[in-house]
Amino acid sequence: MDRRKFFRNGSLFTLGTAIINPFDLSASTFDTEIIGKNKTAKNIIFMVSDGMSTGTLNMADLFLNRKYGKGSNWLQLYKDNKVKRALMDTASASSIVTDSAAGSSSWGGGVRVNNGSLNVGPDGKPNLPILQKFKKAGKMAGCVTTVAITHATPAGFCVNSAKRSAQDDIAEMYLELGFDVMMGGGNNFFDPKVRKDKKDVYAGYYAKGYQIAKTKQELFALKNDKPILGVFDEDAVPYSIDRINSPELSAKIPTLAEMAQKAIDRMKDHKKGFVLQIESGKVDWAAHANDIAGLIHEQIAFDEAVKVAMDFAEKDGNTLVIITTDHGNANPGVIYGKNANDNFDNIQKYTNTNEVILNGFNNTTTASQIREKFEAANGKAVSDEEAKEILSYYNGLHKQEDGLYNYKKLPFKALADIQQKYNSVGWISMDHSADYVELAMYGPGSELLKPFVKNTDLHYLMLQAAEVENKF
Amino acid sequence: MDRRKFFRNGSLFTLGTAIINPFDLSASTFDTEIIGKNKTAKNIIFMVSDGMSTGTLNMADLFLNRKYGKGSNWLQLYKDNKVKRALMDTASASSIVTDSAAGSSSWGGGVRVNNGSLNVGPDGKPNLPILQKFKKAGKMAGCVTTVAITHATPAGFCVNSAKRSAQDDIAEMYLELGFDVMMGGGNNFFDPKVRKDKKDVYAGYYAKGYQIAKTKQELFALKNDKPILGVFDEDAVPYSIDRINSPELSAKIPTLAEMAQKAIDRMKDHKKGFVLQIESGKVDWAAHANDIAGLIHEQIAFDEAVKVAMDFAEKDGNTLVIITTDHGNANPGVIYGKNANDNFDNIQKYTNTNEVILNGFNNTTTASQIREKFEAANGKAVSDEEAKEILSYYNGLHKQEDGLYNYKKLPFKALADIQQKYNSVGWISMDHSADYVELAMYGPGSELLKPFVKNTDLHYLMLQAAEVENKF
Repeated sequence: MDRRKFFRNGSLFTLGTAIINPFDLSASTFDTEIIGKNKTAKNIIFMVSDGMSTGTLNMADLFLNRKYGKGSNWLQLYKDNKVKRALMDTASASSIVTDSAAGSSSWGGGVRVNNGSLNVGPDGKPNLPILQKFKKAGKMAGCVTTVAITHATPAGFCVNSAKRSAQDDIAEMYLELGFDVMMGGGNNFFDPKVRKDKKDVYAGYYAKGYQIAKTKQELFALKNDKPILGVFDEDAVPYSIDRINSPELSAKIPTLAEMAQKAIDRMKDHKKGFVLQIESGKVDWAAHANDIAGLIHEQIAFDEAVKVAMDFAEKDGNTLVIITTDHGNANPGVIYGKNANDNFDNIQKYTNTNEVILNGFNNTTTASQIREKFEAANGKAVSDEEAKEILSYYNGLHKQEDGLYNYKKLPFKALADIQQKYNSVGWISMDHSADYVELAMYGPGSELLKPFVKNTDLHYLMLQAAEVENKF
Repeated sequence: MDRRKFFRNGSLFTLGTAIINPFDLSASTFDTEIIGKNKTAKNIIFMVSDGMSTGTLNMADLFLNRKYGKGSNWLQLYKDNKVKRALMDTASASSIVTDSAAGSSSWGGGVRVNNGSLNVGPDGKPNLPILQKFKKAGKMAGCVTTVAITHATPAGFCVNSAKRSAQDDIAEMYLELGFDVMMGGGNNFFDPKVRKDKKDVYAGYYAKGYQIAKTKQELFALKNDKPILGVFDEDAVPYSIDRINSPELSAKIPTLAEMAQKAIDRMKDHKKGFVLQIESGKVDWAAHANDIAGLIHEQIAFDEAVKVAMDFAEKDGNTLVIITTDHGNANPGVIYGKNANDNFDNIQKYTNTNEVILNGFNNTTTASQIREKFEAANGKAVSDEEAKEILSYYNGLHKQEDGLYNYKKLPFKALADIQQKYNSVGWISMDHSADYVELAMYGPGSELLKPFVKNTDLHYLMLQAAEVENKF
C-alpha cells in the first residue's frame, strides 16, 4: 500500500493531528493536485481540435501507438496525471448540435448564441469577446489556425458579427482591434486581387506596424518585437498528410506546431502575459469528408502543437493550458471484426487525403487509373467494381455529393463506404454531433475545473484563473 | 477568488508554514479529493453498462434533461464532483475491438484474453477470476444483469471457460463456486426442459440451500439470510422500454435497480464485505440493433441502478463504486441539422423497441398497418414508401438482415435508417467499436485511479483498494 502512504499520513482528514511527512510526494498519482493551485494564470493557451469526436482523439492515439509504440501527447498527459479533465456540453442557443461559430462564441463571449453567429445573441445583443477583454486587461492576445484566420473558431474569440460568413469584414476588425499574432490561411479575405471590394487589407496591417509572413521562411525570419500577421494560403492551409507528402508544401507552409511556437515566442516576454488560441481547424473538415487518414494526421498535427504548448507551460509555470474541441463530428470509430487490427493498420499506408485523390479524377479517367491511384495513395487498389462506382460520380451516372466544405462536389461518402471494407472505420454522418466532448486543463486555474461543464463556463474560468475582473 | 482561498491558505505547498484553516472545506470543487482516501474498500460495486459508447451516456443524459429537466445520475456525480474519472483502453489480446467475454475477463482475470474466451489465455492458461479471489478472501460475491446470468460479462468475473458460449456449463460452475447472489435471465441454461442434457440445475441450487426467484414478487419475498438465484426469463429479460409499457411485464420482471437493491440487501451485513457486479447487458443489444429508444431507456435503467449503488455507498462509507462499460458500440450521436432538437425530442414519444415493432409484422402485413403501427409506437407514421421498404424484408423482396442477437433476422438497420430522418440519430455500424471509454469511481480506492487506464488495471486496483493480497 505504498502509494497510499501519503494519504494515510498526510490526509486532509488528519491534518490537525498527525502530520508526519506532508512533503513525501513520491505518490506520483497525485501530481495534478499540487500543480499551480496557489498561482494566477499569467498566460492562457486555449487549444481547439475543431470537430473532434472522442473517437478521433482515441484513434489518433491508437494509430501513433501502433505505428511508433508511443501514443499521443494529449493522452500522455493523462498517463502522467498532469491535467484535470471534464466532459463539456457543447450546445448552442439554437440547437443541441452547435456549429463552430456558436461553439467558439460560447467560450469567447460566455453566452450561448444561435448557430452561425459570432458573439451576437438571439436578441441582437453583442457579448464582448474574451480576447478583447484580455487586451483591455493589458495582455497580448492572438490566434493561430490551419483554416482561414477569419474563420469561425478564431473569430469567436475576437469579434462580434451576426454572420460568421462576413470574413472580409472580420479581417478588417482584427486590424482595428490590434491583436498581436494572427496566423493561418485566408488570403482571400486580405488580398485586393481577391476581395470583392478590392481593398488592400494587408496595406492596413503594414501601416499599423504589423510584420506579415506568407511562407514558412518568412515566418521564421520575423522578429518578436512587433505584431504578426501570417497568411499562408488562399483559404485553409493544406491537410497535414498532403503537406507531409509534398516537398513543395512542406517548404512553404508552416505546421500548426510551428505557428504555435512562433506565436508563443512573440508574446511570452510581455510583462502582463498573453492569451493565445490554437486551432486545428481541419480535423473538422476531414470529419465532414469522412476522410480517416486526413482526420488522424490532422489530429496528430494538433497533438504536436499540444507538445509545444505544454513544453512552454511546464517551463513557465504561470500558464493555463486548455485542450478541447468545440463539438463532435461524425463520431468515427473502429468497428469490430476479425480483421480490425490489420484493417486499421492499413491507414498507416495512406499518403494523401481523399480530397487530393478525388481531385485527381475527371470524366475521362478510367477504372484502371482509379485502381492504380488507390494502390499508390492507400497502399491497396480498390476493386474494379468499386473503381467504376467512383467513376459514376464523374461521368454523370450518379448524382454528385454535396456537403460543407465539399466545394467541388467530390464523392467523399461513396469513397469512405468503400474504404471501410479495408480500414474498418465507420462514421455516423458527415456532420457535427451533440456529443459531450473531452476537455483537459493544465496549470494555474485548472483546479477550478469541475468534471462536467457547459462550454460557456470556460469564459468565466479563464477570467477567474487570470484574476481579471469581468467588468468591461 | 473565494473558491481558491482554501488552497491559498492550506495548499500542500505551504503546509509546513501557514496552516490557517485547513478545515475550511467550503470549496465544494474539491470534494473528491477528500472522500475515502484513508480507508479500505470493504465492499466493491462494479457497474457495467455493456457496449456503452460515450454518445450513449450523453444522449441518455440529454434525453432526461430535455424530458424531465434533470440529467442522469451518472453525470450528476460529475456535476457534484463526487467521483474520479478516467478514459479506459478496452482492447483484448486478439483485437483492438474487444467482445464482452474478453472485456469482462480483462477486469475479472487481470489479463487480456482472446475475444470469445472467459479468463483463458491464448496459451490455454487460466486466470483466477476476481470474484473467486474475493470469495477466498472471505467476502460475499455476486452478479446481477439484464441478460442471461451465464452471459459473458457476469461470467468474466466468475469462471474460466475457453468459450463464452458454454452457458450450460457456466450455470453449473456458479453453483459449484457458491456465489451469494446471481440474478438475471437465462432459464434456458438451468431448466431441464430446455437444457440439452435435461439436467435440472435448479435442483442443485435448492440442494445447496439457495433461494430461487423467478418473478419480481418471489424476489421481493426472499429473505436475506441465504444465497439467492434469480432467473426471470428464458434468455435476456425484456428491454426496459417494453417492460415499462407492459403491465404484465412490469408485474413480473424486476428492474436492474430492484435486482441491485436486493443483491446489496442480501450481502451488506456480511462482516468481511461483498463484491457485486451490476450489468445493464441490453445497452449493448440495443446498440447492435441500432435501436435508439431501446438504447436510451436501457441506459436509463442502468442509471437508476447507479443511484441504488451510490445511495448505499454514500451511507456506508466503505464501498468503492466503479461505473463504466466494457467497450463502445455503434458510436451513436445526434446529427447536426435545423430540426435536431425536435427530432431528438421525438424519441420521447417512442413506446416500444424496434424489436417489438418489427416482430409484429409478417408477410401478410400491409403497408397501412405498418404506418399505423409506427404512428402508435413512434408517435409518427412512416411514409408509404418507407412502409413498403420495411415490408420488402418480410415478403422476400429484400435479403434479410443478419447480426448478433438478431435471432429473427429483423430489418433493424433498414428501420434505423428510416428513423434517422425523424430522430437525427446516426450509428457507425451495428457492432462494437475500439473507442476508449468512460469510467468513474467513488469511494475508498478511487484515489488510485489514473486518468488513463487499461481495462486490466481495474483488476489490480480492486484488490489493492480492498487490501486483498494478490496471492492465490
